[in-house]
Amino acid sequence: MRHRCDVQCNHCSLKPKLTKEITGTRDYNPKQMAIREKVFNTIISCFKRHGAETIDTPVFELKETLTGKYGEDSKLIYDLKDQGGELLSLRYDLTVPFARYLAMNKITNIKRYHIAKVYRRDNPAMTRGRYREFYQCDFDIAGQYDAMIPDAECLKIVYEILHELDLGDFRIKVNDRRILDGMFAVCGVPDDKFRTICSTVDKLDKMSWEDVKKEMVNEKGLSEQAADQIGEYVSMQGGMDLAEHLLQDQKMSQSKQACAGLSDIKLLFSYLQLFQVTDKVVFDLSLARGLDYYTGVIYEAVLTQAGSTEESVSVGSVAGGGRYDGLVGMFDPKGRKVPCVGVSIGIERIFSIMEQKAEVSAEKVRTTEVQVMVASAQKNLLEERLKLTAELWNAGIKAEVMYKKNPKLLSQLQHCEESGIPLVAILGEQELKDGVVKLRVVATREEVSHTVDIHTAPHLRTI
Amino acid sequence: MRHRCDVQCNHCSLKPKLTKEITGTRDYNPKQMAIREKVFNTIISCFKRHGAETIDTPVFELKETLTGKYGEDSKLIYDLKDQGGELLSLRYDLTVPFARYLAMNKITNIKRYHIAKVYRRDNPAMTRGRYREFYQCDFDIAGQYDAMIPDAECLKIVYEILHELDLGDFRIKVNDRRILDGMFAVCGVPDDKFRTICSTVDKLDKMSWEDVKKEMVNEKGLSEQAADQIGEYVSMQGGMDLAEHLLQDQKMSQSKQACAGLSDIKLLFSYLQLFQVTDKVVFDLSLARGLDYYTGVIYEAVLTQAGSTEESVSVGSVAGGGRYDGLVGMFDPKGRKVPCVGVSIGIERIFSIMEQKAEVSAEKVRTTEVQVMVASAQKNLLEERLKLTAELWNAGIKAEVMYKKNPKLLSQLQHCEESGIPLVAILGEQELKDGVVKLRVVATREEVSHTVDIHTAPHLRTI
Repeated sequence: MRHRCDVQCNHCSLKPKLTKEITGTRDYNPKQMAIREKVFNTIISCFKRHGAETIDTPVFELKETLTGKYGEDSKLIYDLKDQGGELLSLRYDLTVPFARYLAMNKITNIKRYHIAKVYRRDNPAMTRGRYREFYQCDFDIAGQYDAMIPDAECLKIVYEILHELDLGDFRIKVNDRRILDGMFAVCGVPDDKFRTICSTVDKLDKMSWEDVKKEMVNEKGLSEQAADQIGEYVSMQGGMDLAEHLLQDQKMSQSKQACAGLSDIKLLFSYLQLFQVTDKVVFDLSLARGLDYYTGVIYEAVLTQAGSTEESVSVGSVAGGGRYDGLVGMFDPKGRKVPCVGVSIGIERIFSIMEQKAEVSAEKVRTTEVQVMVASAQKNLLEERLKLTAELWNAGIKAEVMYKKNPKLLSQLQHCEESGIPLVAILGEQELKDGVVKLRVVATREEVSHTVDIHTAPHLRTI
Repeated sequence: MRHRCDVQCNHCSLKPKLTKEITGTRDYNPKQMAIREKVFNTIISCFKRHGAETIDTPVFELKETLTGKYGEDSKLIYDLKDQGGELLSLRYDLTVPFARYLAMNKITNIKRYHIAKVYRRDNPAMTRGRYREFYQCDFDIAGQYDAMIPDAECLKIVYEILHELDLGDFRIKVNDRRILDGMFAVCGVPDDKFRTICSTVDKLDKMSWEDVKKEMVNEKGLSEQAADQIGEYVSMQGGMDLAEHLLQDQKMSQSKQACAGLSDIKLLFSYLQLFQVTDKVVFDLSLARGLDYYTGVIYEAVLTQAGSTEESVSVGSVAGGGRYDGLVGMFDPKGRKVPCVGVSIGIERIFSIMEQKAEVSAEKVRTTEVQVMVASAQKNLLEERLKLTAELWNAGIKAEVMYKKNPKLLSQLQHCEESGIPLVAILGEQELKDGVVKLRVVATREEVSHTVDIHTAPHLRTI
């Protein structure tokens, strides 16, 4: 037994440390897992309703696969230690692995979802539901199709999911990279300033226009006049009508890019009308998403009033995405492009809202699905309890029995109340003689039936 | 657009490499995912039937948490690069994180399952379904309970899962660490040779007794006589009767440890009889599992004839586990022990068998669950198709529509056949006039109905 003793000793030294969690990560306890499962089920059944397949990729990619995809944020990538073999990094998102997968397998069209954890060496603000290890939940449509049809389905999916999750009122902002670029061009922004000005515009949801303008002019050296022209445009919100209006706009109509984007927005809205989701969708010229790889339509869903949760958890965007027609080509030896459009559901933020809701609301979150507890009032009935429990399991019924020879009836009932088990089957000498089982509703203590044939167990099945 | 162009260039250099997969890992394609989902559903519903909760832990643990737990195999642990902050390693199994979780949260009883990927820098033999990134699927019962009741439930669970997965005939070998240690003692194995002799015995499923004996005597310096005595014992197989017989055995009965183990085996079998699983369970004294942390009963399930798959995929053990009453204490500052018993389902091996089966069998694996395709025979009906599809989605029906303005009817039907969509709803001018939809069974081309009110859509719902 020397070895076990060795192991013991190895550990004394480590014990003090083991009470601390790793920065930016968390264990999920059963209650959190129950909420997580509920959210996943809603989202996955929506993806399946729309005919999506699913794939999975390794948690790590070749370091070089991730290099140069995330601009400045590349410093947030987790690398694995070089222990011989390939240099590996933990995936930073699911989009780059998806593009790598398509190129590697020469797949030219697929509708897939992928729900998995990604890793970023970020400074996490736990309260806002941000972690270093967190879930991403992506739905993407790859393939050469007629304009805006898959794009419209992505928005329909965001609408369905946010509606079903019942997180409160929401709005889906829509814009197009080509409209932004065209707008910058006609407002006289130099080509090499497009991206930096774009990222300033992106701050409009957090900063006032005055501050945004200051940054453009003072920090980024844009002319007062150009800034003011941008200011006019980015204050515009509307629907198909706004797109129509801007197509007639003197300045905007000079940009081919902008016009292409604007007519696609018009087309998009016509499909969104057929999908009956235009009540939540707004064409918003101030929407400019960070990522570089977007090439067309972009969108972002925000909760407009999450009620009581709003104050406590500031959630912001709960979904976002867009069209990226160039990314897959980056991984293809011949640079063959595969047009893609997709959406990422902000699942971690949704988790924290749901967890908040669960805490606020009185109703208890069940962490098991047990339908019936097999109990006994008298001693020495362990064998009968085990036998009945096994018969219930074999009949496909979710059942539990206490791992004690002679548990008290009270403690058996208490366990039911604590874990929300609705029914208790009580065995007693008399019942065994009569070949019956007392079935009781735990909450009311009221008896359901005197005789239950547990092979058909009608009362149990109807739970 | 300079930036995007930069990114492009970054990538030229990498392209050649991107066609190679990372050693010991794999992407799961939609077909593999469909099989994986089916297997998981069977296993998870069994765990839930037995009242298990689930938890999740981060993919990495503090390096020190894993140190000294896996003996020689520690060299297979993946470390993360030191980029500042804690030193981290990828989890090697789910048992150590579970024990860490219990100690950290001072949990003294829980019945939980955990399905997640673990990481080992192993030399993978892909054909045998071994990878560097692979799933583990663990069910464990922690808590101070009456002897052998949770242990029996673990075996019942293995039985149910292997039975439901229908992988062919199987057998569950059972033994007890205390019986092995007692046996070694009474056979005159010196204390400090227990483990090394134990690992030689462990080879009996691959080596003949002669070779095992040679290794004991020639390599490990055990006396001929001791080896022969061990040989007699490890050839024994049986049930409760064998345990009874060994309790009377002159030599064996001298060891308190052995007797404790033997009476527990007797008790275990009495419970297994109540669970009606004794037909597959055998008490086998040659079973000695590698891991050090086992303290009591141990078990392993093997497929005895996996039929046609047997030749191609040599699967060996498909589940294993046992009792480990000391592990949690290693993580508790005060060394408080929490008795645990658990089982790990060899999910990756089960995947490869199922994938094999799927390839052998003719029937096509569906990768989506789409019930109906909304198609049209004539041109210019895109809007009507999108409208109907949205109504189906809103009615909770899994529906697809082609992202083309004017797809050919043939190509729409071909898509149904390729992806196994059972029904096609065909729109035409006439039907639209009459306010009806033609619903056709794809396989037979036969018409289901002339008028479908898609708000109740009876024919679709019954799919």
